[in-house]
Amino acid sequence: MPEQAAERRRETAILLLSCRDTRGIVAEISHFIFAYDGNILHSDQHFDGETRTFFMRIEWDLELFSIPKEKIAAAFEPIAVKFAMSWRLELSSKRARIAIFVSGFDHCLYELLIRNRSGELNAEIPLIIGNHETAEPIARYFDVPFHLFKVTEDGKREAEARQLALLRENRIDLVVLARYMQILGEGFVSEFRDRIINIHHSFLPAFVGARPYHQAHSRGVKIIGATSHYVTAELDQGPIIEQDVARITHRDSVGDLILKGKNLEKLVLSRAVKLHLDHKILVFGNKTVVFD
Amino acid sequence: MPEQAAERRRETAILLLSCRDTRGIVAEISHFIFAYDGNILHSDQHFDGETRTFFMRIEWDLELFSIPKEKIAAAFEPIAVKFAMSWRLELSSKRARIAIFVSGFDHCLYELLIRNRSGELNAEIPLIIGNHETAEPIARYFDVPFHLFKVTEDGKREAEARQLALLRENRIDLVVLARYMQILGEGFVSEFRDRIINIHHSFLPAFVGARPYHQAHSRGVKIIGATSHYVTAELDQGPIIEQDVARITHRDSVGDLILKGKNLEKLVLSRAVKLHLDHKILVFGNKTVVFD
Amino acid sequence: MPEQAAERRRETAILLLSCRDTRGIVAEISHFIFAYDGNILHSDQHFDGETRTFFMRIEWDLELFSIPKEKIAAAFEPIAVKFAMSWRLELSSKRARIAIFVSGFDHCLYELLIRNRSGELNAEIPLIIGNHETAEPIARYFDVPFHLFKVTEDGKREAEARQLALLRENRIDLVVLARYMQILGEGFVSEFRDRIINIHHSFLPAFVGARPYHQAHSRGVKIIGATSHYVTAELDQGPIIEQDVARITHRDSVGDLILKGKNLEKLVLSRAVKLHLDHKILVFGNKTVVFD
Amino acid sequence: MPEQAAERRRETAILLLSCRDTRGIVAEISHFIFAYDGNILHSDQHFDGETRTFFMRIEWDLELFSIPKEKIAAAFEPIAVKFAMSWRLELSSKRARIAIFVSGFDHCLYELLIRNRSGELNAEIPLIIGNHETAEPIARYFDVPFHLFKVTEDGKREAEARQLALLRENRIDLVVLARYMQILGEGFVSEFRDRIINIHHSFLPAFVGARPYHQAHSRGVKIIGATSHYVTAELDQGPIIEQDVARITHRDSVGDLILKGKNLEKLVLSRAVKLHLDHKILVFGNKTVVFD
Repeated sequence: MPEQAAERRRETAILLLSCRDTRGIVAEISHFIFAYDGNILHSDQHFDGETRTFFMRIEWDLELFSIPKEKIAAAFEPIAVKFAMSWRLELSSKRARIAIFVSGFDHCLYELLIRNRSGELNAEIPLIIGNHETAEPIARYFDVPFHLFKVTEDGKREAEARQLALLRENRIDLVVLARYMQILGEGFVSEFRDRIINIHHSFLPAFVGARPYHQAHSRGVKIIGATSHYVTAELDQGPIIEQDVARITHRDSVGDLILKGKNLEKLVLSRAVKLHLDHKILVFGNKTVVFD
Repeated sequence: MPEQAAERRRETAILLLSCRDTRGIVAEISHFIFAYDGNILHSDQHFDGETRTFFMRIEWDLELFSIPKEKIAAAFEPIAVKFAMSWRLELSSKRARIAIFVSGFDHCLYELLIRNRSGELNAEIPLIIGNHETAEPIARYFDVPFHLFKVTEDGKREAEARQLALLRENRIDLVVLARYMQILGEGFVSEFRDRIINIHHSFLPAFVGARPYHQAHSRGVKIIGATSHYVTAELDQGPIIEQDVARITHRDSVGDLILKGKNLEKLVLSRAVKLHLDHKILVFGNKTVVFD
Repeated sequence: MPEQAAERRRETAILLLSCRDTRGIVAEISHFIFAYDGNILHSDQHFDGETRTFFMRIEWDLELFSIPKEKIAAAFEPIAVKFAMSWRLELSSKRARIAIFVSGFDHCLYELLIRNRSGELNAEIPLIIGNHETAEPIARYFDVPFHLFKVTEDGKREAEARQLALLRENRIDLVVLARYMQILGEGFVSEFRDRIINIHHSFLPAFVGARPYHQAHSRGVKIIGATSHYVTAELDQGPIIEQDVARITHRDSVGDLILKGKNLEKLVLSRAVKLHLDHKILVFGNKTVVFD
Repeated sequence: MPEQAAERRRETAILLLSCRDTRGIVAEISHFIFAYDGNILHSDQHFDGETRTFFMRIEWDLELFSIPKEKIAAAFEPIAVKFAMSWRLELSSKRARIAIFVSGFDHCLYELLIRNRSGELNAEIPLIIGNHETAEPIARYFDVPFHLFKVTEDGKREAEARQLALLRENRIDLVVLARYMQILGEGFVSEFRDRIINIHHSFLPAFVGARPYHQAHSRGVKIIGATSHYVTAELDQGPIIEQDVARITHRDSVGDLILKGKNLEKLVLSRAVKLHLDHKILVFGNKTVVFD
């Protein structure tokens, strides 16, 4: 039996915030948690010198915390106002709902579904959207409804409208593009701002756009990479969450790069999704603060 | 001109502590710093579930801090007592004094001296002790006094006594064994407990003891490593600070492993020394908490 | 559509050999291939200085080769005899038949089945043997017969006899232990000498035996690993095929090591199996020569 | 004493060639070596499918070889002509002569000088050229003549002419730009085609040009790199020899990237220089075949 299952999942609250740096923020937040009998489990902070911005992620046990969880945000509000924070409160007890978008390659889809089945992601996946039939039997095996959208350039706007309707209907929190070979429209992207995670099969910013393994082969690089990032309106330019690389040689054909790259893609995407689900990422301009 | 020189070094205080985990520690410490007008620059904590131990490293700017630096420890004492902490206070303004011990291989010695000259380590190196002449001209070039001890098994106890005298005389804070091929006696080790850093040329705990590259070659491993650790009385068993690895193949002879390993050794040792000098390591039983 | 599918698979012959090093071996072999109109695609050799042994892997296109493939071995025999070679001839057209053994963890099993379905391994998997029910629905989804053996210490000998019968019946070429938590008997191992691949969840030779992640956590290492090796009678001592590592910190619990390790295990095992299936490994004493 | 010194250096010949792929090349070359009593030590080949080009590096022991070394090229010529080869013959007994160019950063310079002193590179370094005084005392310590060229935009052409004169005078085989912050003119580059190795402090093709660490910090990448390549007329576009990477986080300032990058730069440059000196690189269009 998987040994990690032995670790009981505690119910926790997670506060993520940023504000202009000033003295007393940590003291005030930690006093707030202490005053209501919360026990801090993790606390991580970052100070960006250029913009003088303070970032914090703090997680505490709710077992003895004397504020009911639905009232914590309201109780914290005055502190947030005092320091003019951008902030959000997350509860570990809420399982995120994910929609996976996929095209012909299925390795990232399999990876996410298997990890979720093993309990590693702790999410619900009520929806897979594909523009190719490949994923259909996989979705069926994992008991996830599959929706096929054969998107043409003409029908794209209308298809996205129907996809958005499905996402709303299913109360989707996060969209994961698991090697989805279709560029999303601006309206779609803005509705899920900082909530669409893509995997690009290159070490960004090298080899933006189509066929990055062909580009890498043609340039003669000795290392290839994969990059997971939040999707923005500009192609492959969103905030980077996670990257990894693999060594190649002159012997590797484009086909070999594709095979080696698949290993990178599925691991990098999985790590990015897990970081997002664990509420460890703060987006800041076009960059991320990742509290891992 | 080196660009990092542009970053002004602030004067900071660093508090390192561990104690039994309980509520209110972070609140109390951050309030202490806030109350005297300190600005927290970094704060990192760790909770060990098995032993219910809490660890913390917190660093704050002394520019506006209203307690003079020589009185901070006394002012903090009551909090330390209240929570029964093991703790120490470090000041970034104090430059550590390092003694380097070396035998025939000089790559780690060069690495430390060059990094210190470039300002990367921010330490003083008043002393190099060698059991081989190799290092003498290097020491001279870097203007560091060199002491040769041709240690025989018979004369070992007496040599160590003289070495300890040199260390005391030079007010040495940290001893770095930069590929020093001589086992130190228990008395020596206990006087510099958690203040002797060694580099072992294997991925510990694999290949303890002599000739680890020969052992690795004979076992047919596909990856070699290097390990930097604090020295304890038991050979190669002290708390591990840092490790790294390199890929090898069947083509690599023992000589090739030695060459590839040299790159690992000097980088791993340098990183471990830098972590120690930046007061980022807490020793805990036979393990380290490294706040990097 | 997967881009690598575009690469046509050529039919090739692969010669793997070792012998005492002497002049003229390469000349004679390459002349043999040339004389019968073969075109060499890959040729790799290695010379072990300690034992004065020569190793070679040479692969050539059979399209225009004038010896029919079932007669190549006989035609090459005189050269093999002349140099007293250990050798074997493999044909790329023959698909290997694999049996996978598995216990409760299913990540390595999934990885192998998915890779084979995508055409990456080019093998047949007619058989999965488990000592736990977990794998049964996975086997069914991938259309592979599953055999459950709840092995007790008493019934072990008899169970292995029945397993061996199944392997023979299914003309199995390679046994893959995909996190199979049962030690195989000597008879079993000797019948499949150099044809049983195991994944051990540590960086061997560190942490041999049970619960290596617990051992790693307890020792306080900063890097964990996984090792794929051929199984011999001595536990975790067989020739190493492939290893890889991942960085950890003091924050990682044993549960975290298990999760991080799963990523290593499935990749390292897959690479080892692929190297074996591509006939790129020569076992030599307790080591491997891997022509990749 | 360094253990690798124990390995006696054999005198060998190394043949590097490329030609249109056809049957019989390996047979003919290996027969040539065998016929004159040479013993092949290493043989590596590569076939590029796109251009149908064959590449080979073959090294043999000259101890019993019956053609005197100064006549080998002439003896091989007919085979080269028959297959219309691009080829060159190198002798391990000839020590390459290197000129190092350097600006303010000295870590790559130190690395090359130390490695050469330890016997690792087996080269002669008769010349260091700098556009900054930093390197002067280092050159003096390693007994290498140092030439200072404070190059202005106006005087650049004239300075390069004098530098070229120095290179010719010193019979320089290889120019290494060890963080030399000055773009070389086309005339210079074309005279040392495929014989100028640069280290660029990014993972090319990402972050071409000036201040790549600032670019990397601004883009928010999670991994930085360094790239060693042959210099061509187009900035940072030459054939890549070697690359490596290091992981960074949001905590790393530009100054931290510079420090972490220095470790990469000196190792990547050293590996590239060693591969060149060991005659393991074939340049092919804008790519390299690296036989390592």
